[in-house]
Amino acid sequence: MKFQVGCQLKYDLTTDSTFIFNISAVNNGSQQVLEEHLQIEPAINSEEYVSSTLKNRILRLTAPPGKLQVSYQATVALCLGEDNPNLIPEIPPKKLPLRVLNYVYPSRYCESDQLFNLANNEFGHLLPDYSRVTAICNWIYDNVTYLSGSTDAHTSAYEIVTQRSGVCRDFAHLGIAFCRALNIPARFVSGYAYGLEPPDFHAVFEAYLGSRWYLFDATRLIPRKGFVRIGTGRDAADMSFATIFGTAQLEGLNVSVDCLTEEPPQATLGAITCV
Amino acid sequence: MKFQVGCQLKYDLTTDSTFIFNISAVNNGSQQVLEEHLQIEPAINSEEYVSSTLKNRILRLTAPPGKLQVSYQATVALCLGEDNPNLIPEIPPKKLPLRVLNYVYPSRYCESDQLFNLANNEFGHLLPDYSRVTAICNWIYDNVTYLSGSTDAHTSAYEIVTQRSGVCRDFAHLGIAFCRALNIPARFVSGYAYGLEPPDFHAVFEAYLGSRWYLFDATRLIPRKGFVRIGTGRDAADMSFATIFGTAQLEGLNVSVDCLTEEPPQATLGAITCV
Amino acid sequence: MKFQVGCQLKYDLTTDSTFIFNISAVNNGSQQVLEEHLQIEPAINSEEYVSSTLKNRILRLTAPPGKLQVSYQATVALCLGEDNPNLIPEIPPKKLPLRVLNYVYPSRYCESDQLFNLANNEFGHLLPDYSRVTAICNWIYDNVTYLSGSTDAHTSAYEIVTQRSGVCRDFAHLGIAFCRALNIPARFVSGYAYGLEPPDFHAVFEAYLGSRWYLFDATRLIPRKGFVRIGTGRDAADMSFATIFGTAQLEGLNVSVDCLTEEPPQATLGAITCV
Amino acid sequence: MKFQVGCQLKYDLTTDSTFIFNISAVNNGSQQVLEEHLQIEPAINSEEYVSSTLKNRILRLTAPPGKLQVSYQATVALCLGEDNPNLIPEIPPKKLPLRVLNYVYPSRYCESDQLFNLANNEFGHLLPDYSRVTAICNWIYDNVTYLSGSTDAHTSAYEIVTQRSGVCRDFAHLGIAFCRALNIPARFVSGYAYGLEPPDFHAVFEAYLGSRWYLFDATRLIPRKGFVRIGTGRDAADMSFATIFGTAQLEGLNVSVDCLTEEPPQATLGAITCV
Repeated sequence: MKFQVGCQLKYDLTTDSTFIFNISAVNNGSQQVLEEHLQIEPAINSEEYVSSTLKNRILRLTAPPGKLQVSYQATVALCLGEDNPNLIPEIPPKKLPLRVLNYVYPSRYCESDQLFNLANNEFGHLLPDYSRVTAICNWIYDNVTYLSGSTDAHTSAYEIVTQRSGVCRDFAHLGIAFCRALNIPARFVSGYAYGLEPPDFHAVFEAYLGSRWYLFDATRLIPRKGFVRIGTGRDAADMSFATIFGTAQLEGLNVSVDCLTEEPPQATLGAITCV
Repeated sequence: MKFQVGCQLKYDLTTDSTFIFNISAVNNGSQQVLEEHLQIEPAINSEEYVSSTLKNRILRLTAPPGKLQVSYQATVALCLGEDNPNLIPEIPPKKLPLRVLNYVYPSRYCESDQLFNLANNEFGHLLPDYSRVTAICNWIYDNVTYLSGSTDAHTSAYEIVTQRSGVCRDFAHLGIAFCRALNIPARFVSGYAYGLEPPDFHAVFEAYLGSRWYLFDATRLIPRKGFVRIGTGRDAADMSFATIFGTAQLEGLNVSVDCLTEEPPQATLGAITCV
Repeated sequence: MKFQVGCQLKYDLTTDSTFIFNISAVNNGSQQVLEEHLQIEPAINSEEYVSSTLKNRILRLTAPPGKLQVSYQATVALCLGEDNPNLIPEIPPKKLPLRVLNYVYPSRYCESDQLFNLANNEFGHLLPDYSRVTAICNWIYDNVTYLSGSTDAHTSAYEIVTQRSGVCRDFAHLGIAFCRALNIPARFVSGYAYGLEPPDFHAVFEAYLGSRWYLFDATRLIPRKGFVRIGTGRDAADMSFATIFGTAQLEGLNVSVDCLTEEPPQATLGAITCV
Repeated sequence: MKFQVGCQLKYDLTTDSTFIFNISAVNNGSQQVLEEHLQIEPAINSEEYVSSTLKNRILRLTAPPGKLQVSYQATVALCLGEDNPNLIPEIPPKKLPLRVLNYVYPSRYCESDQLFNLANNEFGHLLPDYSRVTAICNWIYDNVTYLSGSTDAHTSAYEIVTQRSGVCRDFAHLGIAFCRALNIPARFVSGYAYGLEPPDFHAVFEAYLGSRWYLFDATRLIPRKGFVRIGTGRDAADMSFATIFGTAQLEGLNVSVDCLTEEPPQATLGAITCV
């Protein structure tokens, strides 16, 4: 399936500012950037770094005071796998690949250590397989209200679990924290999501089950097969769409996702996997 | 300089438990394990994983209910560099190597985002070089009391900054959080420390300055040149000496560090670096 | 029903220290102190203040360095009323007596403002009467584990709701916080509890319903009709059994409660009220 | 000195809502309401309750869906005493009047228990008199930035001490928390403040020293002798200008304070007291 994704970011800078952007679609076994275009006004050099393991494409630029506009457009071929969710077990810590182990540990926005009792009370008795992560997503969907503006850049899973409202990044953080509290490796994924209304960057999470990472979205806002990945991290601390060193005001944000294939992605109960 | 380091850990398990140990000394350009011995009672297979970038040596084993004793001994040749602290600048975000960037972001125990104002009020006016990290260490030493038992595995830098008491890991977390709030990459280092009384595992931190990582210890408890590294991470979430999946009680912990060289390491005002 | 209640507190002081004790049984319409004895060793003057509205009996004394022992014994006639729980409505804010209004507001250990969504998600759909507070107690009993030592003097309802373990004071705090989040006035009550094993001071809570205060205990550890009140406050900040200004170590704490009446109090489903 | 104070509050209600207002000026030995006018549109009955000890005047009304406008105007004769700050000692806990003791305990927004070490590190070595509370105010003024919108109704002193920004209520909360951590009774005072720009409700705090309560304002935004008291409480939980039970949106808030006396109040270094 092909998608045309893009964003346009407008800033007003009062000082020289350095930006780290996570807006470029990754290239990996499931997703191929066929064509892309990055435009920066005023014309400024930028620099890209591709992280070794995760293939995140980190974009850095430094701009002078005044207006800055960054536009990114990409055509992406996406081919996410779909497994039978009934056949995917959790992997106990004694057998987990040691390279995924750090995704069991708590992180800034996913304080799984503090959610241990809650997670085990709510989900400890469930079967240790894919369906348990689905139960986590259902719990979040049932208990947390999606409410724009109800959280900010400091809000973590620990607060969401009591505050009971948040946005996509908070839903992802809570899903990750619950998984880790049950010893299931989980991580944060940012991307462009087909069908999101209003269009915006989106965040979902992945859990390591069986022998790979599976995609989950507790918001139920999008068909997961239309999720074009920007990048992967322990939580939003790693994957903010923009980190700013300096003084800049975001003045405009437009995100667009169009499906270039005749049959757009549908909701599915399947287990979605990448690579 | 040569050191003989070791630890003996005794547990009582009530269920099958999987342990992840971070107790083995790393091998890198500054530190070489000349000889080592790992003994597990009862005899159980263990597995080692060496992380690709940081070279951390993660040890995993799964033990049955009953007693478990893990003993590790190593002879380590250590040769930490020492630079002139007056010649080491901070590197602004626009020039930082992108591979160290994730050490600027907040993590579980180092909520630098929440310490932004405090860090900038206290240290924002200082010269952007090595001496600023020294000022951070001095602030911590002057304002936080080293007090065994005053914190636990959930305590983070955000709490320490008000609670004003903690142990080595808390001192390191606060140093890291302050650095990151000033855009200085910083990370957590665990190890064996010569001269620590009573002997225990120790934690310090590294800040990225000039073109490398420098070692800092706000506790002032040890000569940094006698610090034998176990491993490196974003904070203690990555580098607990033992993570236990199961039900086990720590019943004994002995750590020993002996200097095998005639002249033991001395305190220094130099900038200590590894590799 | 008559009870013999008492406590013996032993301290070791390293400096002159002032103590505020809340250990004396109150006198009110439901409870009469028939006889009591306070013994302080070494012999030190103490001072009692009876608060105007709540009738709490606050005891203050200042002791020199060395040992201090405070023993209190009282014979108390207790006659708690019991109403039919099916006939007790909540009172909406527009009709609440204004003198009880401050028990709707959040306090140090009962951050009802932060539990608003959670309380309303869990209990918002229930009938606004006595049974809703019972539902709150059942929720706490079902979801929070009673575990000695799992909390300390800083722990609040906000933490308990995620930590899911605590002691009687934490159970009371959470009950209070949930009630207030639903606009039900609620307050903290400390006392001597018949049947508590092992004997200790106990804490329960009261909710204002119908036209009076009713006693609730989410721990289910005691028959409420055997609860001899020490005092009442917004939360444990007001009603610690001992507040110490100085440096003193608690070295011994004995609490005893005996029933002097032939038929000891039984568990009841009735609505227990005082005065 | 005479002042004309007033406020106009406009709400849009989507349901029947009950309001508790703290907007009326108190009558006490230092302040006399000479004339006042309360207007409610649409015409709705309201009810006033004067609290027994503090003389707070709590106003309650219940309004139907639609617009609500509450206008309050009062002419107030104010005569705050002024003592010599050099002659006012702190009172140690052993001598404090027991009726002020609950103002030493922590409350919702003033977690003095958690600020104990910080307060004692910063202020523990200072002389135990009026000047120590002045030092607290200076610390707050020097270290916390007054920034509208930087905090919300959930923000407490514990957060301000690290966040380092806030508004008048936050400045007051932190002052209170520091005082209590040093065993100085302290409480929250809301009112109308002459000279505040832009005009708004204001919050300051009182500390109990010598034999009475003294007024402090760490914001330095107003002359304290022009502070017309609305009410007094443990913290803002008791003294919100409006508590709403229902669904109402604040659509307009106007506050005005005029001095009717020829010589308006001036800044002073004196110790300001009421009653």
